[in-house]
Amino acid sequence: MSDYDLLVSGGRVVTGNAVVLCDIGIRDGVIVALGAGLEGNAKRHIDATGMIVTPGGVDGHAHIDQPDHPSSIVCDSFETATRSAAVGGTTTVVSFAWQLPGHSLKDTVADYHEKAKASKIDYAFHMTITDATDTVLEDELPALVDAGNRSIKVFMTYDGIGIDDQQILKVLEAARRNGALVCVHAEHHGLIAHMTEKLVRAGKTEPKYFPDSKPIAAEREAVNRIIALAETLDVPIEIFHVSGKEPADEIARAKARGVKVFAETCPQYLVLTRDDLDRPGIEGAKFIFGPPARTKDDQQALWQAIASGTITLISSDHSPNLFWGETGKTQGRDDIGFHEIPNGIPGIAARLPLLHHHGVNAGHIDLVKFCELVCAEPARMFGLYPRKGVIAIGSDADLVLWDRKKEVTLTNEMMHHACDYTPYEGMKVRGFPTMTLLRGDVIAENGEPVQRDPSGIYLARDAYDYIAP
Amino acid sequence: MSDYDLLVSGGRVVTGNAVVLCDIGIRDGVIVALGAGLEGNAKRHIDATGMIVTPGGVDGHAHIDQPDHPSSIVCDSFETATRSAAVGGTTTVVSFAWQLPGHSLKDTVADYHEKAKASKIDYAFHMTITDATDTVLEDELPALVDAGNRSIKVFMTYDGIGIDDQQILKVLEAARRNGALVCVHAEHHGLIAHMTEKLVRAGKTEPKYFPDSKPIAAEREAVNRIIALAETLDVPIEIFHVSGKEPADEIARAKARGVKVFAETCPQYLVLTRDDLDRPGIEGAKFIFGPPARTKDDQQALWQAIASGTITLISSDHSPNLFWGETGKTQGRDDIGFHEIPNGIPGIAARLPLLHHHGVNAGHIDLVKFCELVCAEPARMFGLYPRKGVIAIGSDADLVLWDRKKEVTLTNEMMHHACDYTPYEGMKVRGFPTMTLLRGDVIAENGEPVQRDPSGIYLARDAYDYIAP
Amino acid sequence: MSDYDLLVSGGRVVTGNAVVLCDIGIRDGVIVALGAGLEGNAKRHIDATGMIVTPGGVDGHAHIDQPDHPSSIVCDSFETATRSAAVGGTTTVVSFAWQLPGHSLKDTVADYHEKAKASKIDYAFHMTITDATDTVLEDELPALVDAGNRSIKVFMTYDGIGIDDQQILKVLEAARRNGALVCVHAEHHGLIAHMTEKLVRAGKTEPKYFPDSKPIAAEREAVNRIIALAETLDVPIEIFHVSGKEPADEIARAKARGVKVFAETCPQYLVLTRDDLDRPGIEGAKFIFGPPARTKDDQQALWQAIASGTITLISSDHSPNLFWGETGKTQGRDDIGFHEIPNGIPGIAARLPLLHHHGVNAGHIDLVKFCELVCAEPARMFGLYPRKGVIAIGSDADLVLWDRKKEVTLTNEMMHHACDYTPYEGMKVRGFPTMTLLRGDVIAENGEPVQRDPSGIYLARDAYDYIAP
Amino acid sequence: MSDYDLLVSGGRVVTGNAVVLCDIGIRDGVIVALGAGLEGNAKRHIDATGMIVTPGGVDGHAHIDQPDHPSSIVCDSFETATRSAAVGGTTTVVSFAWQLPGHSLKDTVADYHEKAKASKIDYAFHMTITDATDTVLEDELPALVDAGNRSIKVFMTYDGIGIDDQQILKVLEAARRNGALVCVHAEHHGLIAHMTEKLVRAGKTEPKYFPDSKPIAAEREAVNRIIALAETLDVPIEIFHVSGKEPADEIARAKARGVKVFAETCPQYLVLTRDDLDRPGIEGAKFIFGPPARTKDDQQALWQAIASGTITLISSDHSPNLFWGETGKTQGRDDIGFHEIPNGIPGIAARLPLLHHHGVNAGHIDLVKFCELVCAEPARMFGLYPRKGVIAIGSDADLVLWDRKKEVTLTNEMMHHACDYTPYEGMKVRGFPTMTLLRGDVIAENGEPVQRDPSGIYLARDAYDYIAP
Repeated sequence: MSDYDLLVSGGRVVTGNAVVLCDIGIRDGVIVALGAGLEGNAKRHIDATGMIVTPGGVDGHAHIDQPDHPSSIVCDSFETATRSAAVGGTTTVVSFAWQLPGHSLKDTVADYHEKAKASKIDYAFHMTITDATDTVLEDELPALVDAGNRSIKVFMTYDGIGIDDQQILKVLEAARRNGALVCVHAEHHGLIAHMTEKLVRAGKTEPKYFPDSKPIAAEREAVNRIIALAETLDVPIEIFHVSGKEPADEIARAKARGVKVFAETCPQYLVLTRDDLDRPGIEGAKFIFGPPARTKDDQQALWQAIASGTITLISSDHSPNLFWGETGKTQGRDDIGFHEIPNGIPGIAARLPLLHHHGVNAGHIDLVKFCELVCAEPARMFGLYPRKGVIAIGSDADLVLWDRKKEVTLTNEMMHHACDYTPYEGMKVRGFPTMTLLRGDVIAENGEPVQRDPSGIYLARDAYDYIAP
Repeated sequence: MSDYDLLVSGGRVVTGNAVVLCDIGIRDGVIVALGAGLEGNAKRHIDATGMIVTPGGVDGHAHIDQPDHPSSIVCDSFETATRSAAVGGTTTVVSFAWQLPGHSLKDTVADYHEKAKASKIDYAFHMTITDATDTVLEDELPALVDAGNRSIKVFMTYDGIGIDDQQILKVLEAARRNGALVCVHAEHHGLIAHMTEKLVRAGKTEPKYFPDSKPIAAEREAVNRIIALAETLDVPIEIFHVSGKEPADEIARAKARGVKVFAETCPQYLVLTRDDLDRPGIEGAKFIFGPPARTKDDQQALWQAIASGTITLISSDHSPNLFWGETGKTQGRDDIGFHEIPNGIPGIAARLPLLHHHGVNAGHIDLVKFCELVCAEPARMFGLYPRKGVIAIGSDADLVLWDRKKEVTLTNEMMHHACDYTPYEGMKVRGFPTMTLLRGDVIAENGEPVQRDPSGIYLARDAYDYIAP
Repeated sequence: MSDYDLLVSGGRVVTGNAVVLCDIGIRDGVIVALGAGLEGNAKRHIDATGMIVTPGGVDGHAHIDQPDHPSSIVCDSFETATRSAAVGGTTTVVSFAWQLPGHSLKDTVADYHEKAKASKIDYAFHMTITDATDTVLEDELPALVDAGNRSIKVFMTYDGIGIDDQQILKVLEAARRNGALVCVHAEHHGLIAHMTEKLVRAGKTEPKYFPDSKPIAAEREAVNRIIALAETLDVPIEIFHVSGKEPADEIARAKARGVKVFAETCPQYLVLTRDDLDRPGIEGAKFIFGPPARTKDDQQALWQAIASGTITLISSDHSPNLFWGETGKTQGRDDIGFHEIPNGIPGIAARLPLLHHHGVNAGHIDLVKFCELVCAEPARMFGLYPRKGVIAIGSDADLVLWDRKKEVTLTNEMMHHACDYTPYEGMKVRGFPTMTLLRGDVIAENGEPVQRDPSGIYLARDAYDYIAP
Repeated sequence: MSDYDLLVSGGRVVTGNAVVLCDIGIRDGVIVALGAGLEGNAKRHIDATGMIVTPGGVDGHAHIDQPDHPSSIVCDSFETATRSAAVGGTTTVVSFAWQLPGHSLKDTVADYHEKAKASKIDYAFHMTITDATDTVLEDELPALVDAGNRSIKVFMTYDGIGIDDQQILKVLEAARRNGALVCVHAEHHGLIAHMTEKLVRAGKTEPKYFPDSKPIAAEREAVNRIIALAETLDVPIEIFHVSGKEPADEIARAKARGVKVFAETCPQYLVLTRDDLDRPGIEGAKFIFGPPARTKDDQQALWQAIASGTITLISSDHSPNLFWGETGKTQGRDDIGFHEIPNGIPGIAARLPLLHHHGVNAGHIDLVKFCELVCAEPARMFGLYPRKGVIAIGSDADLVLWDRKKEVTLTNEMMHHACDYTPYEGMKVRGFPTMTLLRGDVIAENGEPVQRDPSGIYLARDAYDYIAP
């Protein structure tokens, strides 16, 4: 009889808050032993000598197989998005079960369970509420939360998607009653509409004007506002995709007075700037996502906010819109205005390599903090910890082997998503996943997804950890 | 031939930024001479020996003869409000020309010119915009501003009065184009509605719960929001009735980064607290106004904000609602809920004596600062300076003689307004106006209005001083 | 042949950043395996079922066997202090090699190596520099740092101990050159001397006046000052024993602008207040330590600073002064003035149980954060990580088994130090160590030290981790 | 009989807080009438038509006839400095009675009374204390303060001049007892010494390195420190020559919590930057003064601090050191190191024209604020108000007539001081004083001092206004 189904040996393992040389023994998809020179039989061996072993990435923010809307036309199915994730070292995704106005949330979640059967990695859902009716909040929500859908997403902007403050207050109350977290896209809708109209009227419609249509003050304001609402009702919230200094400062102020507010940023805000929108021709359209990329100073401020604990999560906000074609950003035109271009970029595969390179290699964070930001804290925040996000006894054997010396030039082909471009085309990074394991099974190797039946399963999430009793 | 129509002699005069012993020579309603022992003939003498002489008060915020609305049923006409003002030492009022939704702003202002003919003191108008149509903003506003109506009032709350952020943005743009100031009642409408509904549902409807329905976070949030909007469009704004520390802090933050935001508070926030709402029976209703009175700590913070220049204006927010009767706060019931009680209290007469006592006598401010807060800065802010608000050569001879030693117990009768109560009943103050002059004419003496024809005139205001070229 | 020398099985283990059910296999004093139901032979078994297992505590701040000085007469030898530590769950201590003015630092360290041979737990030294001569800084320091003494302690106050700013600047430069951390007792010497003299002159000498002699402004000022010096020279520093809100705010401000400043607080600041100094008679003398205990509000602010990451370490500042007797705080008198009373209290044993009770049980922190504050971060900060401070493969088998349900009333006898009192006498806590292991050997059990030869060893510390390359 | 000795007619007068067209009637050196078309006889007329009339400038910070010291060798006597002041529109100066270590303060003040008899303008003294003995503080100070010397200057840096914190605390206590204000040169002595030594050792001794030897952190730190000391003892202080953002921020923080701290800046910090020290050859030495000129961003921050009321005074810090010659900055060498160059620049004449041009013309401040900063507030702060600093009835007839359209290129010759250069050589300004009157007598006209006997008198100052009862 074998002691282990699989033994990963010889790697330097990021286990909890230390990086140690150790072997990992796996049985039934679960980590059952960590040891220096683990002895015992194993059905299979993986030699991780010279590799770094991290937990599988947990991506708390990805748009997959979502209803088309002028503001974003997502091109990835669960199959394509999650094979992309696997290649990039991510083994768990919290995607969105996206309610359309007038629709049942219960049915929405049921639909997404069907769609997600194609997933190559484990998954859970944020429930995007675009129509906060009493039926949704009173009748449907309790059972859905009980079934493990422990978070709600609301938008403060986008016509037909965003909900107004009074609806948000109802959502916050319902979240509080049911023990759910509320995740927020925070930008001031009216100010963006106003600035957009002014720019369009002035004929300033090239992509480079997009950031002016969504000024950081619009984000700062909305962050301050949602904090005030959540603070008054005492409900924990997570601010999605903090893009720069001003919103980060608002969050820091709130945390300092004890508000339960958590914050995420994404690699695009750390790697791209608004200058990328000023590339020749329509090329800038590839960098249209909201909130927009800001400045070098904002990047610096985000690293500082990561260091100080103001920002504790880094997700992808994977939101792949095609570039070419009628359903793409360009809609087949090379003179399209920024206000007509769907928002969103692909990024589920690039998240970890980008952050590893620009974060760890650049000296902003160490490997332990890296794993905190992309594995442990997302898992904790979304009720999946310590099953996910950590290499510990009893945790799922979701592992990523990294060759930290490998130099890679990013291309769209390497991403294995359904999108026809990557905004990171041509960027060089050092360090890349060489193998990704999901519950002990190899799902990607040497940059290629492993062909096999979908193996992802739904993760019913625990009650939200951060809610005080 | 007389040198002067009137000589006010022997007083200690607050002239500009000093308090000096000097005589005041007046001709044609204007100050033409200041001097030590002014010689020359005068038709009339007033002996101010032993008195302090200040400029007439300028009240930048008073609700007079306004359309009834469930949120406030103002009982004062221009006649009664301004005779009350005169007794209390105020000689200029900027009241509201209050547009009703669906109405022309031009007609509204014309109506108010008629109504205001009864005024005993000089007056000008803020234009309250409750329906920011293109007609109002594009067609009507320019001429109205040119005619001296240099400020616009918007509400961020109250059903049927408040306008939403997108309308506010249009108002701000129009204000910028036309050189007008925007004055704001800043409270988060949705949060107040939400908290009110929760309290009512819980049966907590006594007046003492009113402050819980309008938490300071709702004010802080709205102050932050309107600042973000005005800052983005670069339009100067004035925040009305700052009630405590948190909104004052937001304003200080904005001023520190150079935003053109000005702030007012009112005596009620310096003298009353939320404890006053917890008086026995329905008595607490007398203290219902919005934003509500806060805490002792907030009072302290307001004095500090005055000292540091965060708050530069003190107005009355005179908004007299009857207490008894069907159109009063109680609506004839002693079990009325806070949510059914019209907001607002009278205060145009009490403003100066209260601030003199609780400010100057208490050592928070000196006489020069007192006159800055209630005379000079309101005049400057509203384009009336130096015609109003200062004792200087060429200024209108609006003067108040004060007996600083006179001890007075405030009663409603002394207020000479149309309201059936004063929230300050029974309070003692030391120092009270003994005579008020408007352009050289005595309009109040020894606490009584002087019976005479209305003598107030409309003041066409100058372009807004604080807009950079 | 046995697989393990020792197997600790069945406990819930705080391993890195998760709490998991797992067994711990130990060989040669080192953790070699973690596993669910570890199989294999072991020479010895410890059943930890129902227990929580944490890493052994690392105490980064303890005064042991130190030269007598009027400001503190330490009564513990390494033997007594470390047996006390063992009972309380601490297995590593960074104590002080205390230079006397005029003495060689090299000789001082050598002396302490001798003294510390009596230690029951592992140890390292901060070098207390009281005389920053060129000989010390230029000639002696490099070799001492190379030998693993990676930190320097300086005092900004206490006559004959504190050094002035110009000396501190030299120490900071030397620390930078040699890769050492500088730890600081930050209080403004002159202000304390001044306030003390005023109080004494006014006859206010009871212990309750002690906090007035060391106002928090004196600490805030010195914290600000040392930060300015270290920031200018770009040297990492650790602020010892932050006592309340004001100094914590200074540190947060500095961290926010990227200064490499780290901060410690101690249980006494979280559990005691200045009211404890007002106990009857001379009893208050038991609570005299500097900086002094502050207020409830300060306690709250410290918990907040811990939550926000401003404070990352909790040490004991064990500084045991006898209460009775001529060398004690009272010096045999019951009318002794606060200015004559030596500062310092014992606390090396009580640190973990107090923090567990008032921190974890009270809901301020969870078990993972608890271990970060008292084990992992001190180990990291002082160059001992991951050998110490964490339960991971390859780490020393320093373990503490906790019965989290055990209710204990603290008494001095339980502390096993040489001091004749504990300031925590009579306090109740829930949760206490039942067994402490040092490198696989049991050194305390059921509240009693295990009688055996000294087993502690000197730990040569790594180059300071937090210094950027 | 004449009504007036002098009538200044037709000017636009900055009177208190307004700018009005009015005549000024003067009798016995005092303003006795202000009026529109003042009638009455006058012995003499001055036609101010087309001119602006401001109060005479009050300069609260000027070094005149001071003992030589390596850090500054002042070349102006009272005669030369004050004729320079008169030309530039300043009619009152508070200079220093400069104690040498070991000397009596009483004798020092007596000496300065002798020296100042040559003054062309009115004067008072700050008492510079460089040796805070008990004799000075206990025996001498009370009578000196009673005699109108209401302020004490202390230095926190400069060898042989600066005093340590314990002495400063004694000075603060003495100031509190006697009702004196304490003015502070705030820079961290040790840090400057340390940085200087490092730069010199590295051979970086050109003038351009001078700002690196006095980093803004040294100023920020000292400002924070002196505030902490004064706050603890509750003594009002004035911070001299705030040079940039960081110290200004410290002051704003302190004011926000109610500390009685006042702040001054000087034209050199608003007009010059550290780039001026990088002029070719030894030219940079002309711009060596401490604290040093900072950056453009700091200038911006200072204007903001002026706008927000953090900084309320603008003085000259006139400290004229010759450039050439053995007692000059260069000491006859063109390779002199910054550390050997005496600090200080002349500026008493240029203060008002520079501030008028770069402040009023540039739109940072208006004329009323200008007069507040350079006339009224210095007079108020130093107990001379309203006798000095304001055009009001009863005030001294100290007047400046300005031709605001006059374009002037500044040269050293125009300054009429004893110094051989001005740092403002070649700068163009629009607006210059055309006439200066001291108590009704013309003391400068068309840029030339009026030749006459010294007419300045000693001003015994009132008890400090800002001390709460």
